[in-house]
Amino acid sequence: MNKKNWIVKAAGTAFALSLCLTMYAQKEYPKPEGMRPGMSEYWTPQPPVVTPGDPATLSAPSDAIVLFDGKNLSAWESVKGGEAKWEVSDGKFTVVRGTGDIRTKDTFESFQLHIEWRMPENITGESQGRGNSGVFLQGMYEIQILDCYENETYVNGQTGSVYKQTPPLVNAMRKPGEWNVYDIIYTAPIFKEDGTYLYPPRVTVIQNGIVLQNNTTILGTTEYIGFPQVKPHGAGPIKLQDHGDPVQFRNIWLRKL
Amino acid sequence: MNKKNWIVKAAGTAFALSLCLTMYAQKEYPKPEGMRPGMSEYWTPQPPVVTPGDPATLSAPSDAIVLFDGKNLSAWESVKGGEAKWEVSDGKFTVVRGTGDIRTKDTFESFQLHIEWRMPENITGESQGRGNSGVFLQGMYEIQILDCYENETYVNGQTGSVYKQTPPLVNAMRKPGEWNVYDIIYTAPIFKEDGTYLYPPRVTVIQNGIVLQNNTTILGTTEYIGFPQVKPHGAGPIKLQDHGDPVQFRNIWLRKL
Amino acid sequence: MNKKNWIVKAAGTAFALSLCLTMYAQKEYPKPEGMRPGMSEYWTPQPPVVTPGDPATLSAPSDAIVLFDGKNLSAWESVKGGEAKWEVSDGKFTVVRGTGDIRTKDTFESFQLHIEWRMPENITGESQGRGNSGVFLQGMYEIQILDCYENETYVNGQTGSVYKQTPPLVNAMRKPGEWNVYDIIYTAPIFKEDGTYLYPPRVTVIQNGIVLQNNTTILGTTEYIGFPQVKPHGAGPIKLQDHGDPVQFRNIWLRKL
Amino acid sequence: MNKKNWIVKAAGTAFALSLCLTMYAQKEYPKPEGMRPGMSEYWTPQPPVVTPGDPATLSAPSDAIVLFDGKNLSAWESVKGGEAKWEVSDGKFTVVRGTGDIRTKDTFESFQLHIEWRMPENITGESQGRGNSGVFLQGMYEIQILDCYENETYVNGQTGSVYKQTPPLVNAMRKPGEWNVYDIIYTAPIFKEDGTYLYPPRVTVIQNGIVLQNNTTILGTTEYIGFPQVKPHGAGPIKLQDHGDPVQFRNIWLRKL
Repeated sequence: MNKKNWIVKAAGTAFALSLCLTMYAQKEYPKPEGMRPGMSEYWTPQPPVVTPGDPATLSAPSDAIVLFDGKNLSAWESVKGGEAKWEVSDGKFTVVRGTGDIRTKDTFESFQLHIEWRMPENITGESQGRGNSGVFLQGMYEIQILDCYENETYVNGQTGSVYKQTPPLVNAMRKPGEWNVYDIIYTAPIFKEDGTYLYPPRVTVIQNGIVLQNNTTILGTTEYIGFPQVKPHGAGPIKLQDHGDPVQFRNIWLRKL
Repeated sequence: MNKKNWIVKAAGTAFALSLCLTMYAQKEYPKPEGMRPGMSEYWTPQPPVVTPGDPATLSAPSDAIVLFDGKNLSAWESVKGGEAKWEVSDGKFTVVRGTGDIRTKDTFESFQLHIEWRMPENITGESQGRGNSGVFLQGMYEIQILDCYENETYVNGQTGSVYKQTPPLVNAMRKPGEWNVYDIIYTAPIFKEDGTYLYPPRVTVIQNGIVLQNNTTILGTTEYIGFPQVKPHGAGPIKLQDHGDPVQFRNIWLRKL
Repeated sequence: MNKKNWIVKAAGTAFALSLCLTMYAQKEYPKPEGMRPGMSEYWTPQPPVVTPGDPATLSAPSDAIVLFDGKNLSAWESVKGGEAKWEVSDGKFTVVRGTGDIRTKDTFESFQLHIEWRMPENITGESQGRGNSGVFLQGMYEIQILDCYENETYVNGQTGSVYKQTPPLVNAMRKPGEWNVYDIIYTAPIFKEDGTYLYPPRVTVIQNGIVLQNNTTILGTTEYIGFPQVKPHGAGPIKLQDHGDPVQFRNIWLRKL
Repeated sequence: MNKKNWIVKAAGTAFALSLCLTMYAQKEYPKPEGMRPGMSEYWTPQPPVVTPGDPATLSAPSDAIVLFDGKNLSAWESVKGGEAKWEVSDGKFTVVRGTGDIRTKDTFESFQLHIEWRMPENITGESQGRGNSGVFLQGMYEIQILDCYENETYVNGQTGSVYKQTPPLVNAMRKPGEWNVYDIIYTAPIFKEDGTYLYPPRVTVIQNGIVLQNNTTILGTTEYIGFPQVKPHGAGPIKLQDHGDPVQFRNIWLRKL
């Protein structure tokens, strides 16, 4: 455009104009043919209709697999074997120290998980010793749960971290006694034949409506000691950790993605 | 392991054992040295502390830019120029037909956007002619808003679609008269020097707690006619569309990511 | 560090020093424990050993599937059915107009493909009408072959384009009569259950040692008319196009990735 | 299809058939309007024309920055300061033990790098002690160079590894005395304001025409001890390592991407 303006201004005479046009002639290229709106409109397949849940009544979307509706732990089992022995009361359940981790009986690939959790009001301790639990995706990738309300710890071990890997963007904790909400969007890994990731697992974590992880790449299994490991696996359960603290849970549902 | 078992079982005599060991000898490779837990714990930088908002009272997180708190449209302007002329009442605002699109005065790169919207109870029309509006990210990439409650249309034009590009995973509409909630996580594109995308824009859309788009790649600008276009741009506003229908909005806030 | 320097310089007296230290005191966080080199060294599994080919003698790497070694088209078949009817002579083969496309009998997922091709010296025509052929990855995604030496066409249809999608970064053609080399690294798509891409196909194209496509996302099938389509598929052949022009090929090999 | 079969079987009479057809009638959705070929053809901007180099004569593409053409090290400097003191002779240069690493005077963002290197025929030693050097991308991400011809070492330290991170797919070494060719496609990282990666660096490595790394994500800086680190940086040089071994180099050029 600047060139064109310059040409017009310089064209004092027909001779000058013709000279400039020759010098600055640019090849005219064809343009794509024009389209009509209906060419970019697709009617099928129509996405499934889902009735949303209601946060106020702790109800789940109509297509969700309800993992805890306030009544019992029938969707869960103890990792040690046998029934899940955590305590159910008043529409929630509480970690029972020493009974070990629990996991869903079903296993899953990619999903959206909704899970609410809180610390008891009288929680004590500091750093990792205060309200410690965790949600393990496919049984092996942990999103940390910890009472990080006015409690600092190593950042790749605080609430919303991919434990021992990636810290959360912010600390969005509610106080002990108040319910925290996790909405977790998890994409399962795809493995190559040699057992390494073709596509690694990825996770988005939202706590109390605030983004903590935005499609974060998970580097490998959660290891308390050392580097994350890459190990081939198929579908896996949701696992909750008994770290000895009486963390409480309610309103757990999952939608396969 | 099977090989090892086989060896053990086969080793009836010292002679046989030594033969097998020779046959199956595998080179012994070193293993990584052992680590201690503290080697994978990082304490800095500590993520900022954010106080979550409360869905029940329509309050925003403490670090959010509030774009509409129920009182006025001071954060917005008309795309035609001048003040935003949509109607504010009772903690919400309503599209005023013919006044044109409105956009935020501020411009943004990547962000998390919370926006609630609803259709009037007496909405009529069908397909794109019923409760049509839209949220434009950086002013040029539209996430469709439409009354899709018992109203079918082309799927890349229904609520939660990247308009004229990618349909939503599901239809999660609430009825006319009820508030819908959008939580949108948007990652702005990065451009190469030639004006094409080095990294295209990406978007996660959650409606009423249900994932509609999961880190979907946006292919280019929203074009009513023809292919999406790739055009270099910097920060851009949130834009809301006047499509002639009295769609209503409330509780709008944004957090920069 | 600047702060620290400033503190040191400002500390004229013991009093000033103690004041500054108070002002700038920052919480001391633990540091990760120190490691040793051997903790990040892995000896297994040892990658396979491959003997490289020799460009001068047109030989293939030791682990390659040789698709044409100069002698015959036994690895190929006609898409119309029956044997591949293109003409083999002097270590190369030539498109025979009207015999139709040919494809490998084997099918592949992800791979590295080496293929050399040239235009006859006496090629004529212009735009798409000059030396037109193409390599179809998994039988459905075309990397264009065209005589683009001093021959312009639509850029998403020139040599090295993902045909009708993405133009090459540059035009790296050799003259008619000289051999061009394509090295193509292709990553097959992964599909969701609904038949859409979980991960789309991606391609890197190097022509004559020059990068034309760098891990470009392929949007869908190659369509002469209209938008690319997303259609679920499994392993597919390498297909070469009979577009009526006597394009020649030699030294074709593929390594599974 | 199952529904259709069921209908057919159930249709005992014309009446029943017509009833079933009514019950199972599927809604007819509109189809996208038909297009014409010219609607998806773009003529501008025309990609730049590049004359390819010739491997036989070690010449570079016409748009390359030649970093070593066989004559002198004028494009390089010593990392210790001053001129690069490695030895130039017969169109190649050789690491001079103890003179330290050398790096390009220019700095680069994303690029394609061509570099040829070889081990002297009389090389001795084992594991990391045999023909050790390395190419550092942007001065901080090392692609290992090592004589891995019949010489095993830890796999994330062998030739073509992202050193101390990701092993190569295969071992494609030529013998000592023979030239090896690296073609490296590097995409520079993009940083967030907090100094972490928005998009991490990625690298494709081809040795002697064989893919070793395919758009591999680089996790952070190359650290001999401990985890990779993420540190914000701008453009950086190509750096070659003096690890004490007389590794030789020739024909080095780079194209900005």
